[in-house]
Amino acid sequence: MNKFEKAQKVLQDLKGDGWLIICTNTSDVHSRFLLGVGSHARHYIFIAANGKHKILTVEMEAPMIKRSLKNKGVQAEVIVYKTMNELVNLLSPLIHKPRIALNFGENVLSEKGTSYADYIRAGDYFSIKTLAPETEFFSAAPIIYELRSVKSSENLKDLRNVSKANLELLEKIPDWVKVGMTEREIKAKLEYEYMKVGKPSFEAIIGTGAHSADPHHNTSDKKIENGVLLIDTGLQIDEMCTDITWTYWVGKNPSKDFIKAYNALYESKEAANLYYRDGIPNNLPAKKCRESLAKNGFDHEKLFFHGLGHALGFEVHGVGARINWKVPEEYKLKENMVYTNEPGLYWFDKWGVRLEDDVIIGKDKCEQVTYVSKDPIII
Amino acid sequence: MNKFEKAQKVLQDLKGDGWLIICTNTSDVHSRFLLGVGSHARHYIFIAANGKHKILTVEMEAPMIKRSLKNKGVQAEVIVYKTMNELVNLLSPLIHKPRIALNFGENVLSEKGTSYADYIRAGDYFSIKTLAPETEFFSAAPIIYELRSVKSSENLKDLRNVSKANLELLEKIPDWVKVGMTEREIKAKLEYEYMKVGKPSFEAIIGTGAHSADPHHNTSDKKIENGVLLIDTGLQIDEMCTDITWTYWVGKNPSKDFIKAYNALYESKEAANLYYRDGIPNNLPAKKCRESLAKNGFDHEKLFFHGLGHALGFEVHGVGARINWKVPEEYKLKENMVYTNEPGLYWFDKWGVRLEDDVIIGKDKCEQVTYVSKDPIII
Repeated sequence: MNKFEKAQKVLQDLKGDGWLIICTNTSDVHSRFLLGVGSHARHYIFIAANGKHKILTVEMEAPMIKRSLKNKGVQAEVIVYKTMNELVNLLSPLIHKPRIALNFGENVLSEKGTSYADYIRAGDYFSIKTLAPETEFFSAAPIIYELRSVKSSENLKDLRNVSKANLELLEKIPDWVKVGMTEREIKAKLEYEYMKVGKPSFEAIIGTGAHSADPHHNTSDKKIENGVLLIDTGLQIDEMCTDITWTYWVGKNPSKDFIKAYNALYESKEAANLYYRDGIPNNLPAKKCRESLAKNGFDHEKLFFHGLGHALGFEVHGVGARINWKVPEEYKLKENMVYTNEPGLYWFDKWGVRLEDDVIIGKDKCEQVTYVSKDPIII
Repeated sequence: MNKFEKAQKVLQDLKGDGWLIICTNTSDVHSRFLLGVGSHARHYIFIAANGKHKILTVEMEAPMIKRSLKNKGVQAEVIVYKTMNELVNLLSPLIHKPRIALNFGENVLSEKGTSYADYIRAGDYFSIKTLAPETEFFSAAPIIYELRSVKSSENLKDLRNVSKANLELLEKIPDWVKVGMTEREIKAKLEYEYMKVGKPSFEAIIGTGAHSADPHHNTSDKKIENGVLLIDTGLQIDEMCTDITWTYWVGKNPSKDFIKAYNALYESKEAANLYYRDGIPNNLPAKKCRESLAKNGFDHEKLFFHGLGHALGFEVHGVGARINWKVPEEYKLKENMVYTNEPGLYWFDKWGVRLEDDVIIGKDKCEQVTYVSKDPIII
């Protein structure tokens, strides 16, 4: 079954008549996910419960969309609109149906909400609602969850492949990173390698010294100094992303504090890994990780102030509840979901360490697909 | 005046109490525009009419936001939330006011709509509306327009600087592009150079042969062949983006058809340039361009099926009505707006040419900041 057929099936189960995706300037990743091609102008994908799928697009993007769908064996009619009036006339009959799914989230300010489905812009929502005030619009969250949370065997093959490629590039870092290079230069060179085989799955975080203490540091023009160097980066090839953090020591004689933090983090990551299993509540690996850190004398509430992991997939922040000690008990891991395992310890304005690997949730045990070094790597 | 102060002033003119920007995973570019730093977790920027600006953010991003605001001389309180409940409690008093601006567009399916202001996701809008049902939420479009459409002298300085840097890199292309390289390799190398000084303002379009006929072609693994090579690319340094298209001929003896199309396009671009002036309706440069193409025997309605230009700025598709022959008469260019001028001619499944330069709207004449070659460049 291709993605259109899968979505159609979920739609039928939900007694919906169609799933409408509105995308402009890549505002909704489900466009690229379904079409297999990045489309920039305003376009609409309509997946119909009756199988009569339609794409409304501008003339200049129609040929590449048609070609991509043909390659994927997807049956869908690609219709060109030239003016906004034409678009409205084409759109109107599609949504004058009893029940249409749209990509909006519900209760997004609650841990139990579906913010992962929240793509449609408010103005677009208003425009659709005005066009078809009688239609019942419902959240496409269940369709998105079904298509993207548990991975197919092809997805897992893609993941193993992209992980291997990414690890090979990270292993070479000590060969070319030098004191005096800037963070930006490291990012540029690493992402150049990525672009030869795929693309960065997000903008790499390169943090030297005190910058390593900001988990979402914006790579800067600061020169690499002796001491901590944190590299958080990911590669996308085909449909899967990696997300990996390695923390290096630059120069001689890593400090005792650094080694102690590194070793404790590694141990806490391993402790968590044992719980990346089918049926385990999402909060449990995070609790086990924190227990391990506490046992080694680290004040985790103060020093480790983010979640342990997030779902990974077509996007670097994928579909699925986070792995966090505060996630409600009813959220459970499922076989063939893919998650990061990324504990960190940060001393504000001084330095930080984070170790991050990517893991496939297994029936009885997980399959780790990336591997940070057990001991600190010295550059 | 910094951006917070400018926004505050517009807000006061609109009799609004605050402007609330909601951003998660870079969903709203106004976050980076205002904070000067890319923030990934869910965060809220509240610009208050009374000057008591607030940022609500997660612990791990607070230090870098504080540092960036301090560098910019912006007075705003950065408040950390740890749970969704805390966030709701912090947010609630901010929006329990008579009139709050949000980034949504109105009439987005009309040429006269404000889709450029449409950033907030529907689920976020619902959450805010539920939290403060009595508040009047209005579109922030006038604030966004004021902040981003007409450029400041610093913006124009940034633009001239980034244009120069980008041109220098494009001029070197014939030195290293060879038959047999892939489109992807060209993109990777070019964007590597960009990343050393800034970043790509969008993913470069590299189209060899028939791929040049798809204006929004997705760069592929196809090898460069003799004939047409289209490169559409842009660089961002500081606050301004370029967007430039050069169409080269690879190999000996460019075809007569290619030379004819190239020359006619260049002439049409020059004809349009004369109307990139203050007070001119946005549709006029496009009409002049099409008149010029028609005069040279090209069926522009069939062969040139996109607009002539778009606003350029902090984003590659900036704030301002398009330059298109079908744009309503009341949209007029203003001094110090920045636009692309990018006519194209495409023969589906065969080849295409596009020539694109960036232009500052002038009082009496425009200032062109990038320059495609008058005659085809042979590689």
